[in-house]
Amino acid sequence: MNRRNFFKKTALTGVAAISLPEIVSAALTGTNSISETDKLRFSSGDIVLFQGDSITDCGRSRDDENEPNKQSQLGYGYALFAAANLLANNADKKLKIYNRGISGNKVFQLAERWMKDCINLRPNIVSILIGVNDYWHTKTGGYTGTIVEYEADYRTLVARTQKELPWAKIVVCEPFIIHGGTALDDTWESNIAPYREAAKRIAHDYKLTFVPYQSVFNEALKKADATYWGADGVHPSMAGAQLMAQAWVKAVL
Amino acid sequence: MNRRNFFKKTALTGVAAISLPEIVSAALTGTNSISETDKLRFSSGDIVLFQGDSITDCGRSRDDENEPNKQSQLGYGYALFAAANLLANNADKKLKIYNRGISGNKVFQLAERWMKDCINLRPNIVSILIGVNDYWHTKTGGYTGTIVEYEADYRTLVARTQKELPWAKIVVCEPFIIHGGTALDDTWESNIAPYREAAKRIAHDYKLTFVPYQSVFNEALKKADATYWGADGVHPSMAGAQLMAQAWVKAVL
Repeated sequence: MNRRNFFKKTALTGVAAISLPEIVSAALTGTNSISETDKLRFSSGDIVLFQGDSITDCGRSRDDENEPNKQSQLGYGYALFAAANLLANNADKKLKIYNRGISGNKVFQLAERWMKDCINLRPNIVSILIGVNDYWHTKTGGYTGTIVEYEADYRTLVARTQKELPWAKIVVCEPFIIHGGTALDDTWESNIAPYREAAKRIAHDYKLTFVPYQSVFNEALKKADATYWGADGVHPSMAGAQLMAQAWVKAVL
Repeated sequence: MNRRNFFKKTALTGVAAISLPEIVSAALTGTNSISETDKLRFSSGDIVLFQGDSITDCGRSRDDENEPNKQSQLGYGYALFAAANLLANNADKKLKIYNRGISGNKVFQLAERWMKDCINLRPNIVSILIGVNDYWHTKTGGYTGTIVEYEADYRTLVARTQKELPWAKIVVCEPFIIHGGTALDDTWESNIAPYREAAKRIAHDYKLTFVPYQSVFNEALKKADATYWGADGVHPSMAGAQLMAQAWVKAVL
């Protein structure tokens, strides 16, 4: 690196300290992020789809679900904050961003609506966050699905997506809990951990980008407790949602 | 700078390219930003207030207006995106963030409700974006206020705030238009420019932080047109609102 480039690059560093939260930086350093060598570059007109459960849904309007880039369609969770970031920072790309998360969904329910709510949208980036209900509803909802079914159904969903949308980049978001949340008890961690591990295995085996949300929230809890990041331990606050968006952007782009 | 620091700093630069939009960087470089030497550092428990007109209001819930950090209270404009950024990136500070913008407001209307909607909240940071209606409503609303009154009322408001809240940092956001917007005609630029200049003079004379939004949107229009950043030329889109939030954070912190 010559002297000119040295000063050009170091001049930017002051800015990084402002806009990059230490939490995201700490969580994505090291071995958790699978995508370091495979960063995404948008092409003009790319379609981005966020899929998942209530953490993704976050009050989005069903009436507007065919209108990309609209706040009401995106809800008020990490999908909104990620979309706002992507739109502001890639204005020349004219991205189209959709949220089709539905509260309460488990992976088999994504599969049931995948033609309408994924394939038919012809997305270039498919981001999936699913898993917490696959466990939670066995405790509280009478659901009888197992971790084995979760992983098998998730693999089938990914394989189907790769077959139908061979150009698409798939992002697997790690299912997570925010330790100390009011909806959690001592049995959660050991029971939810296998779902996290399954999601990570799938990302690895299919060479997908992985967003290590459990690491992100574990780091975040060093700064403030669950009441700050997501009081019930499952649904992030505004601060938690923004943190998720920042981690998504850092892991994927 | 020794070799170790060199590598430590340059390692961060890849991140800056992701999270810092070129638009904000370009707009805030040079003479437009008054605050370069006076960056804000939050203290624990600081209260942040966003004040203004519809651009700030953005559908915020009046029912929740006493609940800081809540999405519905913050609306869906730049105040929401700035709040999310501030909360995620300063988690150890336990900030309390309020939006009290009201659609249609001119500066004299801020003054009328300043005790309830500013002073009584005891804010540490007061961010004000006001001016577009002071001009617009002379064209369309039968309003007879002048630029002289705008500047005088704005100076009185700032002086009153400094007297009542001597600890508070005041942020003056530049009133702006997004050229090419559908609500604008050829007479706008020459008529709105004096309002921008007045806001900038006030920021300078009272040594306040100034957010140069006209420069930000002028830069943004090099990447995409008004339909992308704010179709009517006055009210920003989600992308425009996120850009405003990023510029606010960059100018103020």
